[in-house]
Amino acid sequence: MNNQQNILIIGAGLCGSLLALRLGQRGYNISVYEKRPDLRKVNSDSGRSINLAFSNRGHKAMKLVGIEDKVKILCIPMNGRMLHDTEGNTIFAPYSGREHEYINSISRDQLNALLLNEAEKHKNVNIYFNRKCKSVDFEKTTALFQDYETKHEFVEDADVIIATDGAGSVMRKSYYLGKKFLFSFSQDYLTHGYKELCILPDSNGNYKTYKNALHIWGRDAFMLIALPNLDGSFTVTLFLSFDDGEYNFTNLTTKERILEFFNTYFKDALELMPNLVDDFLKNPASPLGTVKCSPWHYKGNTLLMGDAAHAIVPFYGQGMNASFEDVVEFDKVLEVYNGDWETVFKTYEASRKKDTDAIADLAIDNFHEMKGHVNQVVFREKRSLEMALEKHFPNEYASKYSLVTFNDNIGYREAMIRGRAQDKAILNMLTNNQLDVKDDLKISLDKIKKATETILENDRISGLK
Amino acid sequence: MNNQQNILIIGAGLCGSLLALRLGQRGYNISVYEKRPDLRKVNSDSGRSINLAFSNRGHKAMKLVGIEDKVKILCIPMNGRMLHDTEGNTIFAPYSGREHEYINSISRDQLNALLLNEAEKHKNVNIYFNRKCKSVDFEKTTALFQDYETKHEFVEDADVIIATDGAGSVMRKSYYLGKKFLFSFSQDYLTHGYKELCILPDSNGNYKTYKNALHIWGRDAFMLIALPNLDGSFTVTLFLSFDDGEYNFTNLTTKERILEFFNTYFKDALELMPNLVDDFLKNPASPLGTVKCSPWHYKGNTLLMGDAAHAIVPFYGQGMNASFEDVVEFDKVLEVYNGDWETVFKTYEASRKKDTDAIADLAIDNFHEMKGHVNQVVFREKRSLEMALEKHFPNEYASKYSLVTFNDNIGYREAMIRGRAQDKAILNMLTNNQLDVKDDLKISLDKIKKATETILENDRISGLK
Repeated sequence: MNNQQNILIIGAGLCGSLLALRLGQRGYNISVYEKRPDLRKVNSDSGRSINLAFSNRGHKAMKLVGIEDKVKILCIPMNGRMLHDTEGNTIFAPYSGREHEYINSISRDQLNALLLNEAEKHKNVNIYFNRKCKSVDFEKTTALFQDYETKHEFVEDADVIIATDGAGSVMRKSYYLGKKFLFSFSQDYLTHGYKELCILPDSNGNYKTYKNALHIWGRDAFMLIALPNLDGSFTVTLFLSFDDGEYNFTNLTTKERILEFFNTYFKDALELMPNLVDDFLKNPASPLGTVKCSPWHYKGNTLLMGDAAHAIVPFYGQGMNASFEDVVEFDKVLEVYNGDWETVFKTYEASRKKDTDAIADLAIDNFHEMKGHVNQVVFREKRSLEMALEKHFPNEYASKYSLVTFNDNIGYREAMIRGRAQDKAILNMLTNNQLDVKDDLKISLDKIKKATETILENDRISGLK
Repeated sequence: MNNQQNILIIGAGLCGSLLALRLGQRGYNISVYEKRPDLRKVNSDSGRSINLAFSNRGHKAMKLVGIEDKVKILCIPMNGRMLHDTEGNTIFAPYSGREHEYINSISRDQLNALLLNEAEKHKNVNIYFNRKCKSVDFEKTTALFQDYETKHEFVEDADVIIATDGAGSVMRKSYYLGKKFLFSFSQDYLTHGYKELCILPDSNGNYKTYKNALHIWGRDAFMLIALPNLDGSFTVTLFLSFDDGEYNFTNLTTKERILEFFNTYFKDALELMPNLVDDFLKNPASPLGTVKCSPWHYKGNTLLMGDAAHAIVPFYGQGMNASFEDVVEFDKVLEVYNGDWETVFKTYEASRKKDTDAIADLAIDNFHEMKGHVNQVVFREKRSLEMALEKHFPNEYASKYSLVTFNDNIGYREAMIRGRAQDKAILNMLTNNQLDVKDDLKISLDKIKKATETILENDRISGLK
């Protein structure tokens, strides 16, 4: 076992800095190259979400590297969804019937800074900023970089290169354009984009609306959400079509139209955002896409990880958590096959890809759930019933949301298959009057379990597996 | 309505030449540029399949342009699958219980030649060979070509450009690399590839095995198929993994290994192919991929059609038929919106893409069906039952295969949804002893219809539509 190997990591974002920290703990010589400036030294205006949902799968990774207490300080618990209707009425819908299960709002930059600090505590980890990767020669295991300041280009050689350079990964592009092997690849854009807005703190620095929730204004064709920040503000995101519908990003270009749109659909939110029009006109509308690809690795030379391998839309709050879980899963495989990179990469992809494919699909599902289903009676009945089941039978029932978000002992794919079957069972039985929210809970639980098993079994049979 | 517009078609393959013919009939000025030489003048060795399955959706297109009688002469009916087991035993499994429903084997080159001849009968259609498209400027509606002989590059201008340049479409690449709009795109390779082989006619020029079937040697992990040609030969195709399993394309490199493989798994086929080893060593192993993308068009300037928009794997025998049906569907939209290209393109994609997405997925399903499911008892029971239902209730029942292949009055997506639900209903009821092949057929029909409707309804409810 030779840990004196040189590992080059491209990208010092959340995944790259966590990976650097973990591999640094394992004793490898780590060089990380990041195209952006050091976010601990400058105010970055990268256009990315400034807060994110942090939950169990991410927490598992923080425990692996021993910084869970330091991360906890950065977290704001969100116990459920606060649903806002067009009249300004709100309903709080918890994420789980178990009190200890909730998600957190966390600052991307603060968490990234923590990970960079922790990684740099290891003298075998070196992080270089303002170095943009231009291409990767995966046959030679070298990468071409350009220094942002001097414009000087240079080639770095390594025993292994791991690219954690995000959804627009340069190494993935080198795989695609290289045509040296069959590279399956997809980029799928939603017709909707997103724009970030802000609810500032009140004059006393306090939160203007309920702090411990993920706020949702779901309007079927579009939606607004808000997550709390430690400084008393909320980061607000509008998800809206670029081109379709009466109001869209293409035609919302004047103060009057923007105010008309918010007055009609988000009146209570507008009241909290006197700064709305300025933010709206200043901030870009960005696309939402899913990226899948395979293989993630080239022999034992190079590997894609995190968003570079599997970028997803943000609606399940799992993007960061999935990337952090990548590191946990990779570390497990490394423990077994350390020294044989090709086997490590192959085994890691074989076990992991099914799960990242699943969370990509689940995130698309949740887009439709958040903007529309949450307003439907049958969906709300399902959620009420599930919350009651989780509360009274905490060890016997977990909703799809709980399986995905809180049950980090199972993979996303298993969570998806079981969760979807449960949803189907409950929705069908509620619709066909075979189940009622007023029924005895134990009887309902048994019915749901039985119907779920039947659905799973029938799917298995018809798949001829 | 101005049909004096200049339409540039890139690619004179099956789709491009049919489109040229149809738009020529409508009176447009058509220029077609093809990178290959004129296949009517040279022996092409393009590496592509030399025969293809031709069925109802393709026939519908031939009727549209009035050449169905000329095509019929080129067709060899295949009434079903001839399944070969490892012992050399065969079972004939018909494609339909209705006698008039069958598919055909047809020569790609003969059919292409016919379409080119028919197109060129119109003096407003001009076809240029040996002109390779290098890129398309979709904003200016121009395309850059290179003359294969003189190497001279030139730009062609048109009112509209339609790219029918196949799975490796240059215009699609221009969309992707141009980054002028959000372009969703996927290329998905199977881990299996294919290699073409041949069963030559016997010394009297006769077929060495049964002519009117698609022969299948399905072996779960791989398979061999054979389709008849008019000259008494069969084109044989081996589908095998590039890298996995005991035998694969990477390790089958010697005469001994190849013969060992065929002796073990395809003994009866080997006996018909004394030329096997030479063919195997000479012919390439080619990849199998699915391509999807969106949008297919850029404003009213350019449009992707056929494989350029939606390349699929060959296992449903629908690749050519889907491309031909594209022309039929496009023609319908053109009839309504002639003169407004942007609306034509948008409307065509909106109605057509769901169907080409569906046939792409169905083709992957059929890969698993052909290589493995056909050997399973429950699958064979399902097919026997379906054949009996189609025979005795010809107007009341159509299997998934029939819906896809013979019911060209419905789209692929509807065929997929209904066909999959039927398959699921039958397989579940057979497995759970709720249905028996010995039951009264009318009772079975009613049970299947009822169970299918329940499955469709439950899917609808759980999709919260």
